[in-house]
Amino acid sequence: MWSNSIGKAFVVTCFGESHGPVVGVTVDGCPAGLSLIVDDIQRALDTRIPQEKDVVSARREPDAVELFSGVFQDHTTGAPLTLHVRNKDVKSSDYDSLKDVVRPGHADYPAKVKYGGFSDYRGGGRLSGRMTAAFVAAGAIAQKLLSTFGVEVLAYTQAIDGVQLENTPSIEAVKKVTYENSMRCPDSFLAEKMHRIVISAKTHGDSVGGVVECTALNLPVGVGEPLFDAIDSELAKILFGIPAVKGVEFGAGFQATRLKGSENNDQYAIKEGKVVTLTNNSGGVLGGMSTGMPLLLRVAFKPPSSIAKEQRTVNVSQMEEAKLGVKGRHDPCIVPKAVPVVQGMVAIGLADLMIRGGMIPRVLKS
Amino acid sequence: MWSNSIGKAFVVTCFGESHGPVVGVTVDGCPAGLSLIVDDIQRALDTRIPQEKDVVSARREPDAVELFSGVFQDHTTGAPLTLHVRNKDVKSSDYDSLKDVVRPGHADYPAKVKYGGFSDYRGGGRLSGRMTAAFVAAGAIAQKLLSTFGVEVLAYTQAIDGVQLENTPSIEAVKKVTYENSMRCPDSFLAEKMHRIVISAKTHGDSVGGVVECTALNLPVGVGEPLFDAIDSELAKILFGIPAVKGVEFGAGFQATRLKGSENNDQYAIKEGKVVTLTNNSGGVLGGMSTGMPLLLRVAFKPPSSIAKEQRTVNVSQMEEAKLGVKGRHDPCIVPKAVPVVQGMVAIGLADLMIRGGMIPRVLKS
Amino acid sequence: MWSNSIGKAFVVTCFGESHGPVVGVTVDGCPAGLSLIVDDIQRALDTRIPQEKDVVSARREPDAVELFSGVFQDHTTGAPLTLHVRNKDVKSSDYDSLKDVVRPGHADYPAKVKYGGFSDYRGGGRLSGRMTAAFVAAGAIAQKLLSTFGVEVLAYTQAIDGVQLENTPSIEAVKKVTYENSMRCPDSFLAEKMHRIVISAKTHGDSVGGVVECTALNLPVGVGEPLFDAIDSELAKILFGIPAVKGVEFGAGFQATRLKGSENNDQYAIKEGKVVTLTNNSGGVLGGMSTGMPLLLRVAFKPPSSIAKEQRTVNVSQMEEAKLGVKGRHDPCIVPKAVPVVQGMVAIGLADLMIRGGMIPRVLKS
Amino acid sequence: MWSNSIGKAFVVTCFGESHGPVVGVTVDGCPAGLSLIVDDIQRALDTRIPQEKDVVSARREPDAVELFSGVFQDHTTGAPLTLHVRNKDVKSSDYDSLKDVVRPGHADYPAKVKYGGFSDYRGGGRLSGRMTAAFVAAGAIAQKLLSTFGVEVLAYTQAIDGVQLENTPSIEAVKKVTYENSMRCPDSFLAEKMHRIVISAKTHGDSVGGVVECTALNLPVGVGEPLFDAIDSELAKILFGIPAVKGVEFGAGFQATRLKGSENNDQYAIKEGKVVTLTNNSGGVLGGMSTGMPLLLRVAFKPPSSIAKEQRTVNVSQMEEAKLGVKGRHDPCIVPKAVPVVQGMVAIGLADLMIRGGMIPRVLKS
Repeated sequence: MWSNSIGKAFVVTCFGESHGPVVGVTVDGCPAGLSLIVDDIQRALDTRIPQEKDVVSARREPDAVELFSGVFQDHTTGAPLTLHVRNKDVKSSDYDSLKDVVRPGHADYPAKVKYGGFSDYRGGGRLSGRMTAAFVAAGAIAQKLLSTFGVEVLAYTQAIDGVQLENTPSIEAVKKVTYENSMRCPDSFLAEKMHRIVISAKTHGDSVGGVVECTALNLPVGVGEPLFDAIDSELAKILFGIPAVKGVEFGAGFQATRLKGSENNDQYAIKEGKVVTLTNNSGGVLGGMSTGMPLLLRVAFKPPSSIAKEQRTVNVSQMEEAKLGVKGRHDPCIVPKAVPVVQGMVAIGLADLMIRGGMIPRVLKS
Repeated sequence: MWSNSIGKAFVVTCFGESHGPVVGVTVDGCPAGLSLIVDDIQRALDTRIPQEKDVVSARREPDAVELFSGVFQDHTTGAPLTLHVRNKDVKSSDYDSLKDVVRPGHADYPAKVKYGGFSDYRGGGRLSGRMTAAFVAAGAIAQKLLSTFGVEVLAYTQAIDGVQLENTPSIEAVKKVTYENSMRCPDSFLAEKMHRIVISAKTHGDSVGGVVECTALNLPVGVGEPLFDAIDSELAKILFGIPAVKGVEFGAGFQATRLKGSENNDQYAIKEGKVVTLTNNSGGVLGGMSTGMPLLLRVAFKPPSSIAKEQRTVNVSQMEEAKLGVKGRHDPCIVPKAVPVVQGMVAIGLADLMIRGGMIPRVLKS
Repeated sequence: MWSNSIGKAFVVTCFGESHGPVVGVTVDGCPAGLSLIVDDIQRALDTRIPQEKDVVSARREPDAVELFSGVFQDHTTGAPLTLHVRNKDVKSSDYDSLKDVVRPGHADYPAKVKYGGFSDYRGGGRLSGRMTAAFVAAGAIAQKLLSTFGVEVLAYTQAIDGVQLENTPSIEAVKKVTYENSMRCPDSFLAEKMHRIVISAKTHGDSVGGVVECTALNLPVGVGEPLFDAIDSELAKILFGIPAVKGVEFGAGFQATRLKGSENNDQYAIKEGKVVTLTNNSGGVLGGMSTGMPLLLRVAFKPPSSIAKEQRTVNVSQMEEAKLGVKGRHDPCIVPKAVPVVQGMVAIGLADLMIRGGMIPRVLKS
Repeated sequence: MWSNSIGKAFVVTCFGESHGPVVGVTVDGCPAGLSLIVDDIQRALDTRIPQEKDVVSARREPDAVELFSGVFQDHTTGAPLTLHVRNKDVKSSDYDSLKDVVRPGHADYPAKVKYGGFSDYRGGGRLSGRMTAAFVAAGAIAQKLLSTFGVEVLAYTQAIDGVQLENTPSIEAVKKVTYENSMRCPDSFLAEKMHRIVISAKTHGDSVGGVVECTALNLPVGVGEPLFDAIDSELAKILFGIPAVKGVEFGAGFQATRLKGSENNDQYAIKEGKVVTLTNNSGGVLGGMSTGMPLLLRVAFKPPSSIAKEQRTVNVSQMEEAKLGVKGRHDPCIVPKAVPVVQGMVAIGLADLMIRGGMIPRVLKS
């Protein structure tokens, strides 16, 4: 009924607030016997925020992670893993004026109505992008687990404000280039272009959106539980849990609606003794199950709602119209930060489904 | 773990196979006291399949629904409602040749690998569009329940093969025109054009896809449980459970990734004493909660995979390549049939979330 | 939130009413590849009601089972299995007078308050012992599945109205004698005595209760998920779902509260190369997990609430006191009928936990 | 599938190990607007361990609680509440010798088999009574919430080693006397007798068990969701999650199996305009729902398994028999410590069911 958990077998419960002492996460259902130390998680968190100060919010969090349970002698025990990421650089005073004046594009208005005025409005409270630090931490555990079974999840910026990769990039480019630039784009030329767009938006007190693409390699055939816990259903649900997401598509996605069946169908062939498809318009998903081809999905991120430009709004306590230019420290584009978040969330979903499908056992071989 | 149920409060469990005796559904959690007779459900089912024979599969099912439990003296009792829709016009022999030769674009291959050869391959078995008859039946109950609280869900064809509505249609057009044409399109001129495209695809042994758009009116503010059972998360999960869906987006969706924050943010105003937004790029969703504005979402349907045109495939038992033109009775375009399915599924998701949010009580006033 | 389902991996959803057309059940999560025909289930149902007319209600149901889904070529496919048991011998008129006069010991009063007068009061409606026909049907599937893995579940009458087995009976006696007498007791001498007690209670317009004991043999070590989905937690929850159950205990149970630790602890030894305990006061459960010793539990059934003897009650519509001798067809003792129900429910719980624990795979070897 | 959470609406997730840095808990689903400060929780924890050193383990934990999320301006926000209780007085070296030699009556053996040797064996690791500190912390929140709705939960020692209360004690005695003695017994005379039994067991290197009784007052009619999330089902499940529990019964419980229907049925009357029963053999539960009479249940605790007396056991690594007298710091009787644990766990279960039943709203009135 309440909903701070995802997954049925690899269950991730998130807690904390943007301006509370911590954001944290409990992972229940990680198999016993996974080699895991806190550094495995810290390394993932360290990549979350681009180092380039010009493209991200001025809020600076060291994002040091603490692990409280579930690991003994550097291996998971099968017990729940609880992690905290401390909030340090909190300026709640920035938000005092926002107690009653709802920010366009943010959850302020429905939250205030839904929670009867009790919700923590500081920095978005629970409905803040800050939660994604916890997602990345849990995602790092999922990725470590998946890697034990040869599965690799890779996300990258596919588009910012319409500037986009023309084709699915090579895995080599994704691995080598993505984290070399502040845009998390596997094409460094496009990354430059994107960077200029972001800077320009920032300069104008505005913001831009974009698309994160994510692939998963070496998935076994049959991951996903039809009808309703299908691989696309589960991943879509998880991905819409990331703040600012407005669309999710697999393979050819919305473009498939413009193809004929004869164009869109991925025909089968045998290659090196294995069944493969000649194209991958399905994005590696048929009937809610993985096909053995690379999983491919795209996630649409809207431009960040906090902008300096003045906008019309309402003071909901006094029920009168108002004007608002959002102050505080904000990201002109959330897409680069979202790349490791999408990667982590997809890994969480896949780990859950692979455990449920019996593809990952409950105790790993020692 | 297994996944033939959706919802936490209004729980819909689907069963049956395309070529078994029935497809059916159990709805657990419908509040007591809802006026409900079997005709309420039958009427919804009767709209599922366009009467025009030229645009749909030749399979003809009367889709007569039977109700086995949960209603006493024409009102729900709070007990589970079980419904069957009988399968009558079954030609399983069409599928004998498909036991080992996997159809491109269908779930045959992953199903065969996942279920070790035990899955019912006749007509797609459990992974068939036929299941959507059960979705529509359950959706009719959800819509009746929602209507008691003033909430109305309306779906329609937004695009077929790239021919699309330019703007969000008027509610009047949606209500009046949608079911007047076989394309389920609220614009009768476009419907004609779409019809020609479908007929042409059929003539060429091919198929086309399209987009279903869906709106929900009069939702209270705050439907949806952040973080993870958000209104967009839950609806996306449910919608990807419909066969052939490849993408889901809310409001401006993927187009929002090309807008500036100042363009995409829906600014607030007061109108007739209520807080409204001047635009609805959010599609009525902020922070995973309904805003009080109309919910608006779009669902991408790929072209049906069963086409007469010959394609490359594999006989997976003998592991050798093969050619296949899919025989049997198939739809050249699934979009019109999908319209009431999307409508029903969205209603199911909203009923579930409104009960969970305390907006629909467990016992209705008599 | 709503609760007509049990289990997380082997999910059993029950529907129907005592005086509706059917009671039924959907089993979602039975692995693919289990050899199963409808007769496997019918045979279990046929043992539910003792043939001796003197000890059971005069209601006579043939309990013919129908299977609607999930089996193809005499094997489960992994899809949900839906079963109906038809209600034939229904005399709803017996219950007209009970619409407002609540029967002592039955659920009439809380049901009427909770469901706002909409609940189906005929024969207890949904809250009737008749539901256990569905439990037995689902239990038969669970037992067939467990037997594939060598696990055997056996229940029997341990006590009626204080007349009780002194010791845990031999498995031989349980298998041979239990279904030879109408009391379902593995000791035929005690069964005679119990029979006289039941007849005497019936003669006096009264009823008696008793205890069902259940064992499960050949369970692997480690069935049960601590902390909260422990084997004892899960089975207790399921068993309290059977009407008339007032207590559940494992091993020495309440008697263990009178033993010293040195008496109650089961000491370990090695026997034929395996770790065993010298006693089984734990009932085969430690820390919520199976120990490899026989599971042993007892379930307390109160005397049936429907008795001919006049009792004080209340007409809740008119809010005035009343007298009531319950007419209609009732059981003087529910214990014999409860034996296959307990057996089936324990099997359901164990099947669920063994699948969750990875001890039963999702696809059986063909 | 994994199982460190209980509840569907008021969801309690427990983490931590006996000898890790913390035991902790996350409560997801506490309504917004509950007045709550950390002292409310600390006070409950402070009563968990009797101050009398002679009856409890020598392990001394200050049990200082920290709250990390979910409270803003001294009220719950509707977001998850995460609490830690730090472990301070840890002597892990006591357990080094137990790595391979399994302790009779403990979960060591099944845990070792189930978790492939990866489980944390120090102090029972995750399967330790120490977890109950987290249960008490979460229970304190549940009790505060229930009290807002007039519901009061009270537990007390009913029996130790066969010395038992003859009748249900008066609420006055329960409230006044229970925490005045180290036995947590509402009868101070019996408490003395119990105390002598505990001391004697300790002196002999042995241990004793007992029974905790629990009542809940002022429950509305209809708490509990039939069939399977019935009030007795849910509470039984939760209570078997407490270490050392071997039986749970409601009302007359196992004794009801020796009563005639005419004796056991609680007859109805009208008293002060309300429907009441003249007796309470049902323990306030009919058909899985509360009746409006006091809830009454009993929980059987076995004698603690850790005793100094030498017992037979097995070294499972070397597969050879061994002898073991358990060293370390242990409780001669767990019952007094279990009293606030049972109280807290029952409160958790009731809070969950009352929210699910719509009896507690999601946002409290401010």
